[in-house]
Amino acid sequence: MKRKTAVKKTALVLWGTTDLGPPHFSADILWRTGFKAPDPVVLVEIPDGKSFILISPLELERAAKECRPEIEAVNLSDYDSKTKGYVANFLQKHGVQKIIVPETFPCGIKDHLAKSFSIVAAPPPFYPKRAIKTDWEVAEIEKAQRAVENAVGKALVFLWSCYIKEDKIIAYGSPDIYINCGLVTSESLRKIIDGSLYSQGYLGVDTIVSCGLQAADPHCKGFGPLTAHQPIVMDVFPLSLETHYYADMTRTFFKGEPPQELKDMYNGVLRGQVKGISMVMDGADGKYIYDTTIGDFEKDGYHTNTETRPMEGFFHGVGYGVGLDIHEAPRINSSGSLLSEGNVVTVGPGLYYQNGIEPSFLLSKKGIPIGGIRIEDMVLVTKDGCRNLTQFPKDLGSMIIP
Amino acid sequence: MKRKTAVKKTALVLWGTTDLGPPHFSADILWRTGFKAPDPVVLVEIPDGKSFILISPLELERAAKECRPEIEAVNLSDYDSKTKGYVANFLQKHGVQKIIVPETFPCGIKDHLAKSFSIVAAPPPFYPKRAIKTDWEVAEIEKAQRAVENAVGKALVFLWSCYIKEDKIIAYGSPDIYINCGLVTSESLRKIIDGSLYSQGYLGVDTIVSCGLQAADPHCKGFGPLTAHQPIVMDVFPLSLETHYYADMTRTFFKGEPPQELKDMYNGVLRGQVKGISMVMDGADGKYIYDTTIGDFEKDGYHTNTETRPMEGFFHGVGYGVGLDIHEAPRINSSGSLLSEGNVVTVGPGLYYQNGIEPSFLLSKKGIPIGGIRIEDMVLVTKDGCRNLTQFPKDLGSMIIP
Repeated sequence: MKRKTAVKKTALVLWGTTDLGPPHFSADILWRTGFKAPDPVVLVEIPDGKSFILISPLELERAAKECRPEIEAVNLSDYDSKTKGYVANFLQKHGVQKIIVPETFPCGIKDHLAKSFSIVAAPPPFYPKRAIKTDWEVAEIEKAQRAVENAVGKALVFLWSCYIKEDKIIAYGSPDIYINCGLVTSESLRKIIDGSLYSQGYLGVDTIVSCGLQAADPHCKGFGPLTAHQPIVMDVFPLSLETHYYADMTRTFFKGEPPQELKDMYNGVLRGQVKGISMVMDGADGKYIYDTTIGDFEKDGYHTNTETRPMEGFFHGVGYGVGLDIHEAPRINSSGSLLSEGNVVTVGPGLYYQNGIEPSFLLSKKGIPIGGIRIEDMVLVTKDGCRNLTQFPKDLGSMIIP
Repeated sequence: MKRKTAVKKTALVLWGTTDLGPPHFSADILWRTGFKAPDPVVLVEIPDGKSFILISPLELERAAKECRPEIEAVNLSDYDSKTKGYVANFLQKHGVQKIIVPETFPCGIKDHLAKSFSIVAAPPPFYPKRAIKTDWEVAEIEKAQRAVENAVGKALVFLWSCYIKEDKIIAYGSPDIYINCGLVTSESLRKIIDGSLYSQGYLGVDTIVSCGLQAADPHCKGFGPLTAHQPIVMDVFPLSLETHYYADMTRTFFKGEPPQELKDMYNGVLRGQVKGISMVMDGADGKYIYDTTIGDFEKDGYHTNTETRPMEGFFHGVGYGVGLDIHEAPRINSSGSLLSEGNVVTVGPGLYYQNGIEPSFLLSKKGIPIGGIRIEDMVLVTKDGCRNLTQFPKDLGSMIIP
């Protein structure tokens, strides 16, 4: 008897980006195969069947050795204009009729494969399981976090050793670590942090050390001399040069006592951050945590306005997943996702105001450049709460360096 | 009178990869805009019209400051599921009817845009002009090359300071620079090279330091103790952490006099490399240079076999373009491209043989692990030849360290 209602044989197909080199790889392919491929690769997964990595002959031996044992390395032959046809043949030979690709799959290759197969482009995340970290992954992320804390600690020790003169921060010591006649700069602290990270096997690039008004732009990496009594935001998010896992932490320091308004704002952000962490647990809704955070800021008088240019108040998400990408699922923001046991997420709200557009409670103090304050930890979601992977202090007292 | 044959208004659209952070960016977008975008961006170019970068509000101020003046920064609003629709509206508002995207454009977004526009996916290179370097770009690549030479020089000074005992290379000095009781390893030399690069503002990742049999696999980065009298291949290809331009150089060293067969093979590769460079000029055919190189190797008795596993002989291209990507157009290989004035290309042939599958002229010497030899320079194509951007020596005498 002939079966008439055969289920279409479906494959997942991923295409490694072709224009990248180390230390960046397609996170999905690295996660699934364990293999760091500098050259183009194609990953083919036949559910309940086999998984293959199609790879150039130059990489074949290494792929066979380094891929997870369930992934079979196959010669892709030379990567050139004929590659698409080769992949199509491979899929046909394995009886594949339907293909599922990520939305980011290269359109030129999808259009070619669409001639022979039915194709569906799946929205992210392609591997939802990537958001659930294994014990080994959590350990890797914690190792990266220890490196971050070590590096930020080094920057702090240096700041302790400096003195204040006319609201500038001045360094004693060797002239190659700072510039501008002893003035301590964003660049000098960044060099200390990134240098420490590199010596520990981690790569920090565009590490944020921004002060005062610059800190009011959360993506400004900071430049030039730092100012005493004003917030110095350090946002450090390196990746392991060995395993490619990230960590992420932000702290806001002051060299010299800040004005009361900044202390109040710091404690406002800290309250929001601590409350955010207290709401993290398996099943929690990222959007609810975000709404609570921004609502509490409003109640405290810290208004958000995303219509002004630049924006003011709290205008980014509370947090996001961290792993092989610095920003990955799940999200704790206005779109939101449900959190699950095993997620590693950041909780890092901030407040940002610029000179002349202070919140109303500061109107009497016009002229104080308020800048930005952000406090960010990384936590592991558990069944009934979370475990904070960040050990660095965050109380206001520890953030003020005499 | 009504015009009936209006030309369709066409836009180029590029989509910044969404899962990357620094130091890697979409090279096309970085090249065109000058802007390093850590978040998703969309670049829209209306030929003979305007060019726009659509970007998240968090990045808007920075993009407006840092993009080339001819690129207008536009608020992409939040990057979420509505982004595709937002981009479609933007294009319609600007009267765009037809879109040209790179073949690597995300298929999910192309399929969405295809509902409203006619779309063509163009094969690479998307910006052919990227292969023609400006004076500033050549200067950046040369600066990177100077950093490479400085770093390799440091590794050599260290190798000079070592001694040979029972064919092993032994280090004097501090125990943290090498491992294994004084045995000099691939890892220790890589640490010297990458550390020197980093201190100069360059990032070397997976820098190759491979010896003996390991060097017979051109992509093996090398590990464990190095052996005297055998080839030590150093292939160094860092990128600038500031401007993101690459350089690339390979040298093959020997600690202690190698056997005559290896000297002959070294000189064979060197002859091929020097002849390759002599053929580089505006209008030269990359395929012709490749064919000549592999043909000359054959005449010298160095046969290539790509059917064996592992392959043997000369089984990669002669060279490729270098710029914001480590491998870019044009290619000097079996597919080949025409070279043009202003291209920066590598010329780096190699020969690779493993124990027991030596070429026939070595059959009498079975048991010698032959390994691999590669010599690679980077040159700027000129009207009637080329200018070598590499200053490091490559004569056999300089490669043998006593």
